Amino acid sequence: VIGDRADRIAAEVRAATEEADFVIVTGGLGPTEDDVTRRGVAAAGDVPLVEDRAALKQIERFFQRRNREMSESNRGQALIPQGGGLFPNPIGTAPGFELIINGHPVFCLPGVPEEMRLLMKKYVLPRLSDGKGRKQARPARVRLHLAGITESSVNEQIKGLASLADLKVGITVHHSVITIQVSARDDGGAGRLEAAREDLRKIFGNRIFGEGTDNRIEEAVGRLLIEKGITFALAESCTGGLLGHMMTSVPGISDVFLEGTVAYSVDAKMRTLAVPEKLLQEHGQVSSQVARAMAQGAAERAGARAGIGITGIAGPGGGTPEKPVGTVHMAVFLDGALWDRRYMFGGDRNMIKRRSATLALDLLRRAVLGTL
Amino acid sequence: VIGDRADRIAAEVRAATEEADFVIVTGGLGPTEDDVTRRGVAAAGDVPLVEDRAALKQIERFFQRRNREMSESNRGQALIPQGGGLFPNPIGTAPGFELIINGHPVFCLPGVPEEMRLLMKKYVLPRLSDGKGRKQARPARVRLHLAGITESSVNEQIKGLASLADLKVGITVHHSVITIQVSARDDGGAGRLEAAREDLRKIFGNRIFGEGTDNRIEEAVGRLLIEKGITFALAESCTGGLLGHMMTSVPGISDVFLEGTVAYSVDAKMRTLAVPEKLLQEHGQVSSQVARAMAQGAAERAGARAGIGITGIAGPGGGTPEKPVGTVHMAVFLDGALWDRRYMFGGDRNMIKRRSATLALDLLRRAVLGTL
Repeated sequence: VIGDRADRIAAEVRAATEEADFVIVTGGLGPTEDDVTRRGVAAAGDVPLVEDRAALKQIERFFQRRNREMSESNRGQALIPQGGGLFPNPIGTAPGFELIINGHPVFCLPGVPEEMRLLMKKYVLPRLSDGKGRKQARPARVRLHLAGITESSVNEQIKGLASLADLKVGITVHHSVITIQVSARDDGGAGRLEAAREDLRKIFGNRIFGEGTDNRIEEAVGRLLIEKGITFALAESCTGGLLGHMMTSVPGISDVFLEGTVAYSVDAKMRTLAVPEKLLQEHGQVSSQVARAMAQGAAERAGARAGIGITGIAGPGGGTPEKPVGTVHMAVFLDGALWDRRYMFGGDRNMIKRRSATLALDLLRRAVLGTL
Repeated sequence: VIGDRADRIAAEVRAATEEADFVIVTGGLGPTEDDVTRRGVAAAGDVPLVEDRAALKQIERFFQRRNREMSESNRGQALIPQGGGLFPNPIGTAPGFELIINGHPVFCLPGVPEEMRLLMKKYVLPRLSDGKGRKQARPARVRLHLAGITESSVNEQIKGLASLADLKVGITVHHSVITIQVSARDDGGAGRLEAAREDLRKIFGNRIFGEGTDNRIEEAVGRLLIEKGITFALAESCTGGLLGHMMTSVPGISDVFLEGTVAYSVDAKMRTLAVPEKLLQEHGQVSSQVARAMAQGAAERAGARAGIGITGIAGPGGGTPEKPVGTVHMAVFLDGALWDRRYMFGGDRNMIKRRSATLALDLLRRAVLGTL
């Protein structure tokens, strides 16, 4: 991490090119005075900054499309070191660029994560595999992502599995998604890896919702619903809209996602989701009965085949001895049938929301697959 | 970053204690076989692992409270290096611990971010300021957080400001929140900093929604609504629940947040939010008219004083030449009055959702403050 000083950036980049095959620099390409990366890198390469016509045009277009005036400071974003190659940025005003210093490529990318990722994929990664940089051989590995099961239980079930004997096994957990990563300790492990993968699939079956980079359960569930054409609606209480936010991050979901309700108040549960007052009084807002009524109410109201209902206590307030913070009831409705689950989550408000969302989506997934 | 090998952890931790005043280690305290931090750190300190009774009791209680059986691998989480001090973990099964190696404290914390943060605040930070570690003097600085204004515009407005002359100024932007950070270049800058802060407050007025660590606009808006007792409802289309998710991360919000609707389909907009079919046909789903009707419909339906309506095209599909991806209309309803805004956002689906949510919350904030 280098501060916003061009002289330090120049010194560090120069030093890096003496040690490494290539250098990636991110950030400091914005329009403001503390954005000094382009000056620092130009100094490292001992070249002046020049205005790149293609970059300038692109920045102008960016503002034209938005009907906004381009300021002088944005014009400065079209400067790149002389002799450098431009990486046009279609989603922001800061283009990236490449400059060869000491015979090694220095890639400069904007710091906004989405812009950085885009330019990295489009310009940097292809350059690294064409022989100008050096491509790292990735060790062979298998990654399986599961939900609805605990880390300890996964560990107990794979302990002593013969096919894993010579392999390196790691188990991680993130928002109730368990990832089993298996990699070979040496180069010749591909066959052994495949045998291990088969064994793990046999043990965990469709607890596994994704492999490799497919580690987002909302993507797995969203794709499944789109593929099967199953329309759905959501009724959220303690997750407060998170479930809707996750599902609407899946491109194409608007074909099947009809409506979501964040029923935070008792009134909203009764009025919008048609949860009977009697149920609410007899069992309380946080109960399996209310979760079931929410799931069904959401689906029926929206005219959807499927519905999810979640109600719980995310804290920090609201807990009681019988229903402490972390108590969450969830239910899934599908074509007339209902399933529910009760969980006791540890963690803070955000963790409880995330874990609830993961497990509710997994419940719907398994209902759709017919394995509940 | 050290891999899951106890011998490497031992070597690195030992080396770190020879160079640094204190060492913080995170991760690898879970129940599975690849969680080898406690073994590695014990080896670095040349002491055996012992079962800590207090830790074991706490883990047992964790499982009892959840009615789950404790596995043998969880029992292993009660092991800490002999002579170490336990950091009980109230929200997970992995306790942290401290061990003095080479005269310097080594703090081991779980890797789950929420657990790590909690133990860091409760045990590590106090230890670092009581003379056993060394407390870093923080350079004096002022941070102001703004919304509803562009980075370039902020830059233009503060250019040449006399009170900033001797100070270091940085401007960053994250999901449409602009942060101006001003810090002194030397120790005697406190008076100059205060003058700069006053000037910036004069220039930007209530575009500033927070200072210092208060950089979450949902917190600022939520606290304001709770303080003024203004009930509200949400009607989201392209943000898909994100607004509800953000607002329900504010403790105590249930006092004023009545209901949210994710009206993804045309039907949902008409049925749940009472948006007239005529409006939808004449102006299209993505229009200021529909955003206004959504804001008002949400508030009236829930019986709330305030409502937010957002409708837009988050992409990647759905754009047209007149309404390209990134077009977002938002409206705020408050006590019978309505305001709306139109934006053209760059960026991908997630960026468009985040930026829309920030600016809609800021619109409500300024409506409540009476400065729209």
